[in-house]
Amino acid sequence: MKKVAVVVGAGDATGGAIAERFAAEGYAVCAVRRNGDKLAPLVARIEESGGQAHAFGVDARIEEDMVALFDKIEVEVGPIEVAVFNVGANVSFSILETTGRVYRKVWEMACFAGFLTGREAARRMVKREAGTIIFTSATASIRGAPGFAAFSGAKHGLRALAQSMARELGPRGIHVAHVVIDGAIDTAWIRENFPETAALKAEDGVLNPIDIAEAYWRIHCQPRSAWSHELDLRPWKEKW
Amino acid sequence: MKKVAVVVGAGDATGGAIAERFAAEGYAVCAVRRNGDKLAPLVARIEESGGQAHAFGVDARIEEDMVALFDKIEVEVGPIEVAVFNVGANVSFSILETTGRVYRKVWEMACFAGFLTGREAARRMVKREAGTIIFTSATASIRGAPGFAAFSGAKHGLRALAQSMARELGPRGIHVAHVVIDGAIDTAWIRENFPETAALKAEDGVLNPIDIAEAYWRIHCQPRSAWSHELDLRPWKEKW
Amino acid sequence: MKKVAVVVGAGDATGGAIAERFAAEGYAVCAVRRNGDKLAPLVARIEESGGQAHAFGVDARIEEDMVALFDKIEVEVGPIEVAVFNVGANVSFSILETTGRVYRKVWEMACFAGFLTGREAARRMVKREAGTIIFTSATASIRGAPGFAAFSGAKHGLRALAQSMARELGPRGIHVAHVVIDGAIDTAWIRENFPETAALKAEDGVLNPIDIAEAYWRIHCQPRSAWSHELDLRPWKEKW
Amino acid sequence: MKKVAVVVGAGDATGGAIAERFAAEGYAVCAVRRNGDKLAPLVARIEESGGQAHAFGVDARIEEDMVALFDKIEVEVGPIEVAVFNVGANVSFSILETTGRVYRKVWEMACFAGFLTGREAARRMVKREAGTIIFTSATASIRGAPGFAAFSGAKHGLRALAQSMARELGPRGIHVAHVVIDGAIDTAWIRENFPETAALKAEDGVLNPIDIAEAYWRIHCQPRSAWSHELDLRPWKEKW
Repeated sequence: MKKVAVVVGAGDATGGAIAERFAAEGYAVCAVRRNGDKLAPLVARIEESGGQAHAFGVDARIEEDMVALFDKIEVEVGPIEVAVFNVGANVSFSILETTGRVYRKVWEMACFAGFLTGREAARRMVKREAGTIIFTSATASIRGAPGFAAFSGAKHGLRALAQSMARELGPRGIHVAHVVIDGAIDTAWIRENFPETAALKAEDGVLNPIDIAEAYWRIHCQPRSAWSHELDLRPWKEKW
Repeated sequence: MKKVAVVVGAGDATGGAIAERFAAEGYAVCAVRRNGDKLAPLVARIEESGGQAHAFGVDARIEEDMVALFDKIEVEVGPIEVAVFNVGANVSFSILETTGRVYRKVWEMACFAGFLTGREAARRMVKREAGTIIFTSATASIRGAPGFAAFSGAKHGLRALAQSMARELGPRGIHVAHVVIDGAIDTAWIRENFPETAALKAEDGVLNPIDIAEAYWRIHCQPRSAWSHELDLRPWKEKW
Repeated sequence: MKKVAVVVGAGDATGGAIAERFAAEGYAVCAVRRNGDKLAPLVARIEESGGQAHAFGVDARIEEDMVALFDKIEVEVGPIEVAVFNVGANVSFSILETTGRVYRKVWEMACFAGFLTGREAARRMVKREAGTIIFTSATASIRGAPGFAAFSGAKHGLRALAQSMARELGPRGIHVAHVVIDGAIDTAWIRENFPETAALKAEDGVLNPIDIAEAYWRIHCQPRSAWSHELDLRPWKEKW
Repeated sequence: MKKVAVVVGAGDATGGAIAERFAAEGYAVCAVRRNGDKLAPLVARIEESGGQAHAFGVDARIEEDMVALFDKIEVEVGPIEVAVFNVGANVSFSILETTGRVYRKVWEMACFAGFLTGREAARRMVKREAGTIIFTSATASIRGAPGFAAFSGAKHGLRALAQSMARELGPRGIHVAHVVIDGAIDTAWIRENFPETAALKAEDGVLNPIDIAEAYWRIHCQPRSAWSHELDLRPWKEKW
């Protein structure tokens, strides 16, 4: 059986690039997304490159579905060596206009789903005393900007989760990392909504998903004598 | 009409002391707790001291009930000048044993209820361009300790909320503060469950709720030219 | 003998206001500044208000002079209960243009002099197991902005000093605090060099030295069961 | 001409391993240490492996010597592409027993020498709009532990330097990184003084210099669209 890498939040940009990076290293990649049909192009790309990929349409906020997902992967695909949580939910509202529904939904997507992903991965990895769990995060995890109470609250919570898990699970052989993405990523969404930002790509001013994926691969490669728990990734021209 | 101070999470220790402190300064205090009947002794103490107090039995996690609460207070008691969020939810579990139910409940109590409190207070204060909102927090808001993924996640979220609100609402005249309590508070719960810790009281080794309340009063007294957003409170012998 | 408050860096604005605040509470104030002659107006103001003040012209970067200063104060004025370090050195240069001389001098003024002040105060306070040491700091203590390698380096060092001292000396009865001033202070220098900033005073947009002094007094008043180690002070309209 | 990597503080463990790592990638390595004679074994090892190495005996705290060193390297060896500052000075004293001499010396070694290294490297790199500068740091850069006022003060200052330089020089094409080493490194000094810690090596419980060097190499390999400024390195069993 191949080693397995699970990517929860395997979107078209970062999550997809991470899936392809691990597939290129010989991992059986399990790509997870609410709408599993949208994973077809990613699976096709990986398979065309000679890799192995599996698509799962699962809502990462639903506990029983996530438990079932991880069970199914371990039984049908193989032992999970790497789990990446990559679900975002970046919205901005004045605190005065933030509804309870939005505040809760952002937390469920960017934090609670991360908790479920991390816990289910950890439960299986502790038995083998090995594995890597990486959380994709953002500057909002360390700074509460005006208009971002919901998003930064969720990302702060995700950072606390990663830190708490790292301290508990590190000595049990599991490498938990928290990656602070600081800058726009080159995605279709950015290209459509922020063309000026997207134009910075010409001079490497936006994050290339392939480079993020490379950083994740390097985190996984670190020997246990020298693990990184937190690192930032930022384009050279980004103000911070 | 008297100026009003609302204390959400007016328990027997810290919340109660804060209520009494503001009542002693002439504020009409609105004490809020899930079980309103338990507020009777606090209201009685305040009234015996010549103060004004009102008890409200409200679950601070329910949006429509919180909206109704703030409406009712503004209509029946008076304009809210101070709002304190003081609900805690300190539990510890291995990440492997943390259920989705517990993780969510801790967040709803220690973070989501804080969001509702802060937002409802802010909505009313912005019209008057004045007011103070204080969040009681903990060291868990800045450190994810092992076994505390749920609690530190909620407190991290609360800190992000406070920071985001301060940046948005400060220029609109509202003073938002986040108080990092670092140490055991002298409560009935500590006395029953951690008698050795409680015994430190003899040498001021635990936080006295009266001293916390004094700090909150001083935060509220700060002129707008020199506001504190974040401060810690810690007994002199506490290790940190 | 009166209780003594020492203010190292008793300039015309913040340091002077702190000196006057403690003098108003009955402290014999020892004001320290490189050029002692410039302290005459401050001493006169305090004495006219019925307070007690002593001027000392000392270069706070010179170890033997600082040791002699603290010896002299303890013998001739009385036991030091409060020590405030308030020397600044805010300069900005590109890293490429920062000379070794400037980098060192900024550190000597804003960090090394703070070390000497803190250590000499602590040496005398530990015998009495009581006392308060407050360091005036800046946002540069927690963020290394471009062009401020020297200043933020010194302030970061001062913050490390305060934190290390608080952890060592708190359990010995000494309250060590670090105050992060985030915003322009209403000084003659600001009025001359940044008139637009100074104009914000009309709407409380700059820090009033009197308000900073009040915050320092409140820190000193905290009982040892609930000490603050770090707090920020910021005008309500300040961006951060 | 070969590309050049300068390692200031090329000791027997970490600095040496970094030198060897870059030499293995084809860099002409310039190893710098106060006592240049001690560099002979390192140079020999690199040359035996087919690499190119140059030894420089320079006191990194002396400005004119450092300027001359960088001039000499650029003229005689080649254009500097990578500069690593790796000088440490970990000592522990009660604040009460910390002499001005020790406090200053620790700062000169762990911070001022880093400033000189970073500035001289940057001055040459900005002309080429490319280069990597890495500072070896420690947990003391983010926490002021009791007994470590001098060391944590210097490391805090080094962190401020790195952050300020990164913000100024990033947009000019220079990658500045700050690496927080959190844990004992496998060195002769640790083996002699802390044999119990050294024994953890058998289970990867101490940092292997080779792994640190690998992390540095990977930092240098990052494309400018996704640079890390700060990351930690910690053995899996380390408490933090």
